[in-house]
Amino acid sequence: MSKPRRGQKVFPAPTDALVTPRFAGISTFMRLPHITDPNELDVALVGVPFDSATSYRPGARFGPRHIRDQSAIIRPYNPALGVNPFTRHRIADFGDLSVNPLSIEDTFTRITEGLAPLLAAGVIPICVGGDHSILLPILRAIHARHGPVALVQLDAHSDTWDQYWGVKYCHGTPVRRAIEEGLLADGLVLQVGLRGQLYAEADFDFSREHKIAWVTGEEFHAKGIPEVQRKLRRFRNHPTYLTLDIDVVDPAFAPGTGTPQVAGLSSAQIVDLVRSLKGLHFVGADVVEVAPAYDSAGITSLLAANLLYELLCLL
Amino acid sequence: MSKPRRGQKVFPAPTDALVTPRFAGISTFMRLPHITDPNELDVALVGVPFDSATSYRPGARFGPRHIRDQSAIIRPYNPALGVNPFTRHRIADFGDLSVNPLSIEDTFTRITEGLAPLLAAGVIPICVGGDHSILLPILRAIHARHGPVALVQLDAHSDTWDQYWGVKYCHGTPVRRAIEEGLLADGLVLQVGLRGQLYAEADFDFSREHKIAWVTGEEFHAKGIPEVQRKLRRFRNHPTYLTLDIDVVDPAFAPGTGTPQVAGLSSAQIVDLVRSLKGLHFVGADVVEVAPAYDSAGITSLLAANLLYELLCLL
Amino acid sequence: MSKPRRGQKVFPAPTDALVTPRFAGISTFMRLPHITDPNELDVALVGVPFDSATSYRPGARFGPRHIRDQSAIIRPYNPALGVNPFTRHRIADFGDLSVNPLSIEDTFTRITEGLAPLLAAGVIPICVGGDHSILLPILRAIHARHGPVALVQLDAHSDTWDQYWGVKYCHGTPVRRAIEEGLLADGLVLQVGLRGQLYAEADFDFSREHKIAWVTGEEFHAKGIPEVQRKLRRFRNHPTYLTLDIDVVDPAFAPGTGTPQVAGLSSAQIVDLVRSLKGLHFVGADVVEVAPAYDSAGITSLLAANLLYELLCLL
Amino acid sequence: MSKPRRGQKVFPAPTDALVTPRFAGISTFMRLPHITDPNELDVALVGVPFDSATSYRPGARFGPRHIRDQSAIIRPYNPALGVNPFTRHRIADFGDLSVNPLSIEDTFTRITEGLAPLLAAGVIPICVGGDHSILLPILRAIHARHGPVALVQLDAHSDTWDQYWGVKYCHGTPVRRAIEEGLLADGLVLQVGLRGQLYAEADFDFSREHKIAWVTGEEFHAKGIPEVQRKLRRFRNHPTYLTLDIDVVDPAFAPGTGTPQVAGLSSAQIVDLVRSLKGLHFVGADVVEVAPAYDSAGITSLLAANLLYELLCLL
Amino acid sequence: MSKPRRGQKVFPAPTDALVTPRFAGISTFMRLPHITDPNELDVALVGVPFDSATSYRPGARFGPRHIRDQSAIIRPYNPALGVNPFTRHRIADFGDLSVNPLSIEDTFTRITEGLAPLLAAGVIPICVGGDHSILLPILRAIHARHGPVALVQLDAHSDTWDQYWGVKYCHGTPVRRAIEEGLLADGLVLQVGLRGQLYAEADFDFSREHKIAWVTGEEFHAKGIPEVQRKLRRFRNHPTYLTLDIDVVDPAFAPGTGTPQVAGLSSAQIVDLVRSLKGLHFVGADVVEVAPAYDSAGITSLLAANLLYELLCLL
Amino acid sequence: MSKPRRGQKVFPAPTDALVTPRFAGISTFMRLPHITDPNELDVALVGVPFDSATSYRPGARFGPRHIRDQSAIIRPYNPALGVNPFTRHRIADFGDLSVNPLSIEDTFTRITEGLAPLLAAGVIPICVGGDHSILLPILRAIHARHGPVALVQLDAHSDTWDQYWGVKYCHGTPVRRAIEEGLLADGLVLQVGLRGQLYAEADFDFSREHKIAWVTGEEFHAKGIPEVQRKLRRFRNHPTYLTLDIDVVDPAFAPGTGTPQVAGLSSAQIVDLVRSLKGLHFVGADVVEVAPAYDSAGITSLLAANLLYELLCLL
Repeated sequence: MSKPRRGQKVFPAPTDALVTPRFAGISTFMRLPHITDPNELDVALVGVPFDSATSYRPGARFGPRHIRDQSAIIRPYNPALGVNPFTRHRIADFGDLSVNPLSIEDTFTRITEGLAPLLAAGVIPICVGGDHSILLPILRAIHARHGPVALVQLDAHSDTWDQYWGVKYCHGTPVRRAIEEGLLADGLVLQVGLRGQLYAEADFDFSREHKIAWVTGEEFHAKGIPEVQRKLRRFRNHPTYLTLDIDVVDPAFAPGTGTPQVAGLSSAQIVDLVRSLKGLHFVGADVVEVAPAYDSAGITSLLAANLLYELLCLL
Repeated sequence: MSKPRRGQKVFPAPTDALVTPRFAGISTFMRLPHITDPNELDVALVGVPFDSATSYRPGARFGPRHIRDQSAIIRPYNPALGVNPFTRHRIADFGDLSVNPLSIEDTFTRITEGLAPLLAAGVIPICVGGDHSILLPILRAIHARHGPVALVQLDAHSDTWDQYWGVKYCHGTPVRRAIEEGLLADGLVLQVGLRGQLYAEADFDFSREHKIAWVTGEEFHAKGIPEVQRKLRRFRNHPTYLTLDIDVVDPAFAPGTGTPQVAGLSSAQIVDLVRSLKGLHFVGADVVEVAPAYDSAGITSLLAANLLYELLCLL
Repeated sequence: MSKPRRGQKVFPAPTDALVTPRFAGISTFMRLPHITDPNELDVALVGVPFDSATSYRPGARFGPRHIRDQSAIIRPYNPALGVNPFTRHRIADFGDLSVNPLSIEDTFTRITEGLAPLLAAGVIPICVGGDHSILLPILRAIHARHGPVALVQLDAHSDTWDQYWGVKYCHGTPVRRAIEEGLLADGLVLQVGLRGQLYAEADFDFSREHKIAWVTGEEFHAKGIPEVQRKLRRFRNHPTYLTLDIDVVDPAFAPGTGTPQVAGLSSAQIVDLVRSLKGLHFVGADVVEVAPAYDSAGITSLLAANLLYELLCLL
Repeated sequence: MSKPRRGQKVFPAPTDALVTPRFAGISTFMRLPHITDPNELDVALVGVPFDSATSYRPGARFGPRHIRDQSAIIRPYNPALGVNPFTRHRIADFGDLSVNPLSIEDTFTRITEGLAPLLAAGVIPICVGGDHSILLPILRAIHARHGPVALVQLDAHSDTWDQYWGVKYCHGTPVRRAIEEGLLADGLVLQVGLRGQLYAEADFDFSREHKIAWVTGEEFHAKGIPEVQRKLRRFRNHPTYLTLDIDVVDPAFAPGTGTPQVAGLSSAQIVDLVRSLKGLHFVGADVVEVAPAYDSAGITSLLAANLLYELLCLL
Repeated sequence: MSKPRRGQKVFPAPTDALVTPRFAGISTFMRLPHITDPNELDVALVGVPFDSATSYRPGARFGPRHIRDQSAIIRPYNPALGVNPFTRHRIADFGDLSVNPLSIEDTFTRITEGLAPLLAAGVIPICVGGDHSILLPILRAIHARHGPVALVQLDAHSDTWDQYWGVKYCHGTPVRRAIEEGLLADGLVLQVGLRGQLYAEADFDFSREHKIAWVTGEEFHAKGIPEVQRKLRRFRNHPTYLTLDIDVVDPAFAPGTGTPQVAGLSSAQIVDLVRSLKGLHFVGADVVEVAPAYDSAGITSLLAANLLYELLCLL
Repeated sequence: MSKPRRGQKVFPAPTDALVTPRFAGISTFMRLPHITDPNELDVALVGVPFDSATSYRPGARFGPRHIRDQSAIIRPYNPALGVNPFTRHRIADFGDLSVNPLSIEDTFTRITEGLAPLLAAGVIPICVGGDHSILLPILRAIHARHGPVALVQLDAHSDTWDQYWGVKYCHGTPVRRAIEEGLLADGLVLQVGLRGQLYAEADFDFSREHKIAWVTGEEFHAKGIPEVQRKLRRFRNHPTYLTLDIDVVDPAFAPGTGTPQVAGLSSAQIVDLVRSLKGLHFVGADVVEVAPAYDSAGITSLLAANLLYELLCLL
């Protein structure tokens, strides 16, 4: 894990697969060094192995581990975008935040506090879930640094429900809570890929009231990326957070997730969609809801690893 | 499993996932009550766990059980169509028909007789296979009630072969038998999704003779739903039966099936296709050939459950 | 699901596999009727699909569903013991208790309250987990009815830790909590099958202080059932609760569990061990920690279903 | 696939793994040549891929294919017995009998007729199932050549039920039918490994009436091979058929089967048990009920392949 | 396996599934006879079970075996092209070439020498890998017969790296080596489906220098087959070799491969793409990199079998 | 990963699962720190992810990664032996040796050279394969430090073959090569667990000539550990190397291996057997042949991790 210098900064480099085979060595995100000092970093890949706020199939706590493993196949240079993110930014595997699988509340505190030093040092956190509940404490940390941010959410579900079984904080509610807590910029929330059944037409009420924009899965299949870009026009220059729930992708491409929803995006579509976000001003991002126990040959984790890589190329 | 009343009818409601988690409770189709009295129903979801007429990989006898399990994720309201089928019709899980895995003949009798009381009471049966051989006894029961019906068949295979190993009744022959028995309306059979190898060009002879229309998988990929709608024009108003063999879908989206065929539809395409059938006059339907032993993380059963739900929304 | 009468009681009978195939019908424990009226029952099989107090691999929330499925293979008569439990006791599937996957505390309340009416009616509850944390609220309900009970615990782990991550209630602590709360009879706790690493020798302190007896896995392999029976002598006639954590069995026989421990019992050994408990005065029992996502061909659920059946034969 | 001569006979030799790797080449039983001329053989390994008489989980039709694959690992010399069966007998892969998955009756005829030329030529058939129903037509063919034979049955189930769903011929009835048809020698039937629940105590009536001897699984675990040998004393010198249902083995060792039963034999026990049968006068044998769709890493097929090899060493 | 004659040639026919079920019989490619005499063949399906030149996940050595198994489902007539290849050409399963898993060099020699007699007899070899390293020795054999050939490569990777860990011959280098050895016609190399990360922009240098043309995955998704056909114009009439690395397909459709790459082609796209190559003058072809240990329900092998069939239809 | 001091040495401590959950953090052996300076260590856990010398099913290159993952469940204190190895010795995860999957020869050099600095510093290496071929270069390094050592080999196979396909160095030959190279002490080689077929009786010749002692699997099942101890008497005090091929265990307990052999040891037996070696003077050890692609729920890696732990307790 050599660290080539450029100017005075040290850019952590992924282990070179032409020197050490991909299957060898201790597993980190994209075979990057494990670095925990925020001052050595511009971007931190941060595992958040928490899934106790899941309503259906648990297991996303093992997401970071399996995404680390599958990310070993990734080489550094992106020919589609002409970018090597590892020579542009100092990027490393920050390790996992400590979580408490027995307490949603304690975990939320740990996440917000765990990210604070990174954000204070100006590091962009790219979190790897874990279930989607982690979005809320991440946004709290982001807000403490950046104020209200725009949100681009790639997801099969709007995650704007009010509560489950009397509990306000779970993986179906973070966007509602974030809006209620004032963490998001007014009118700058876009959800792409929504589909599947709801409880009632009234499920849209909150979104309409709070001017959440969306492109459903059906609309995306029909109109594609231009429709997304049309709705993103107002986001330019605003600090933006990107959250990517892997269930935006179809279960054929991402079986390893907790609440799979048919008729989703293909892997080619999601890669294209993420690349199309180039130009937005991202201050943080995440990929969540990879549940490896339901995966097949690691394809969900592999896709998640590639999407993390594409996120890095957006910065 | 509360039963809200509307007028004098009691509409069975799915167990509410916001009250009881999806993974809890005895497993029924879409978490509906188990109701066996035809007079309490408008639409019956009926399991037909029979697969002894399979020519290749068996296992569809476990289809109803796994589709019940995966259907737990389905919420009641369809935002794409603006419909909640459970408040429109009295729908419940009728349970499974009793079958005889050791006798095709006995099973056919049981199926036809098992459906008769439902049809006599005006209930629309939505059957869940099982292999495709069950189409014939279902159509016999339908015919006894409705006379010759139109048939929309979504399938990789035409199922119009004459026999296998000297046997006339199996999952490769029900459409031919149904036509020979006069169960289908003349010129009102449309097959969508046909693809893969045949034995010879002559395999089309029967279809041509009997004016079966079709849209191949290749044609569907090239021309899409408009081509289907063009061929369906004459079906309007005619009582129609819909049979959906899950192998119309590509093995990536539906690996859990007995005779998988590559180059099939995606899950987004099949959902769109089913929705496009809105407006036809359906008197019954089925989803067949889900073989869970070959599934991956339940994605085939999950898709089948969603397609059952979409069928309910067509009524 | 006929209900043969004996005297004035109606004995629920399992669906007969010689009439309806095992793979047909809505899935219940041992194909028994689903009965929720305590007055119709002597013994209730109760699902408790809760796993949010798990420290490692989650998924036991799906235990009841899969054990129901695998229990379809069980016939009623036990030739090894000469017993048909279904003609001795009125036994049925009570369904699942409602749980809250987002709150350990709320779930504990629901469990204790959910069992109360059963216990009040004199019904013996046989619970199906779920993770081992459910033992505590079950014992609270048992205690409310029976006072302090003896405990026979078949388990790889003593579950007497004090806390995990500052939380007192989880699947590693129920036995300690139960003793602290006075739910167990003094000196009448026996743990069989303990093995694997601990944090330190001091981990035994609590057990020694509270006169918990144990037979380690190593001792069981060396000395067998006589050693267990020797330590059980004082239990005779005392109301006793039996808790069976499936990880007492080796991972080869029960891979589908959350904290597997090698060098465990074989399936033949655990069946023998359970049968050897005949003669104890059981007032309740459970089988916990079956996590189907890690199972192979359902063998863990199948074993759990058989152990539930053997428990029924002990009564 | 060279054929070394010994005297005038040509002894088919397995492909040598030191020359051609085990994973290379067209897959046959133990990498033996595929020979269909009875006159070139002393012993024929015969696939019987039929599973349509199964009462629960189907899939044994794929047994021969997977057992062929896993048998590639077997080397020719048995150090435990000091035997190389391939230099003692002319053994080859006869291929599969043609079966009809849609007709039990037609298949039975095909099996009996398919074995006739082998038996007429003095060849010992070793059949590879397929479900246990094939035992009956095999025994009919054996009887035509040898008259009533003794039967050693290694099995979790006695297979002496009278019928399922009104059908007399299925995988739960072959031993009863064989006795009724006079195919078995009076008082020379021994069943080893019986265990699990029955319908009622009366299930033993037929066995008692017809002097079937048995050693239950529990007895085998307690008393071992000597108990089997004690009951086999009268079999010496009598022409004997050996039928081995893989479910005699525990599901941990043989998950890939249709009606698994816990508390079975280990692989070490079944290998020992088969070897202990040396000295009996076998005129045929089978290994049945391997259902690969439920297998894990091929371990069931691997065990079956080893048991077939051990059978060859008994001759 | 009857052999109908046409003129004086004998055309090997696949076993008829209407006579012998697909799951019965010894497994060969498309149920064709196993023929090793080049003079009886026009086209030979040749297994090359070698994967020791793999850089990441091994297992393609089991590709031929599993593709044989899955090819059992293929019927002879291609309705999309109106072709039955088995009545046009004498096609059979040649078996596997002998390989040496411990030596890349020895294996390369064996492959080149193993194909020589086929090519000398005018047979077109269709090879089934095995990893992509086998392309080089195949092209050496092709070159010895045909001189420099054009190459159409369907692949996620260009395979033009120079070396891995100091070794020149592996599955990432065969195209570079082939060009260096003069095996390919100048300017007649087209690669379709390239995508994923590279080490650096300089990775394209070799391709640019040697006038390799390509259509990336992104370009293919955007422009489709016409873009491929545009670049193939100069290939017409030139002897051409087709190599198809299954990882050109997306992991959802082909999880069973060694270096999966997201955002690939669907099964419908690859089938269309292969069919679009009709009219080229093929002198050989291969399908490589199917690694069954990572497959799901055989879908990768099934797709590979279909692609082999489509290749046969191109000839 | 705190490092408590004892005297002047720093003893690396496993991450405490009561502080950080087992599923969190970058994966190392037993959650130990990753330390590469030999001077900080007494014992090094060293991954050797090489499997290119495998004769049958590859995949052991992923052994170290999966064993690291499964080792997360291990707590520090061994109650059966009353030992906490991590407070006795300075033990850490050394990481993986760099290997070359394309060259057996180069890899052997890398292994021997990679271990040299550890041995020079007096560190005991505990290697984690990888296939069994790595034993030879390990023994070369051991020999360079310690001279000829005794060898205890727990294995289904003797690994004393002379060559495969003309190659002298592979996973079936290391013991023969080690003896030929003089790396092992004369008459001090004991093999335990040998079983399964051989090529011929002559396969024992080499062992007999070189006074290799053995206890077959059959003998171990019959006579147990005392038989092993009897044959180990002469080993006391002699520097001894322990090599543990996971296939010594039965496939039910260790399906994830390359050349599985039925009738092996249970997990309880192998743990007991390893513990019984206490008192020998070990200078190094390994656990090899874990091939995760064939594993089920990680049970093979879990067992391997436990055996590594037990090895540490022997020191």
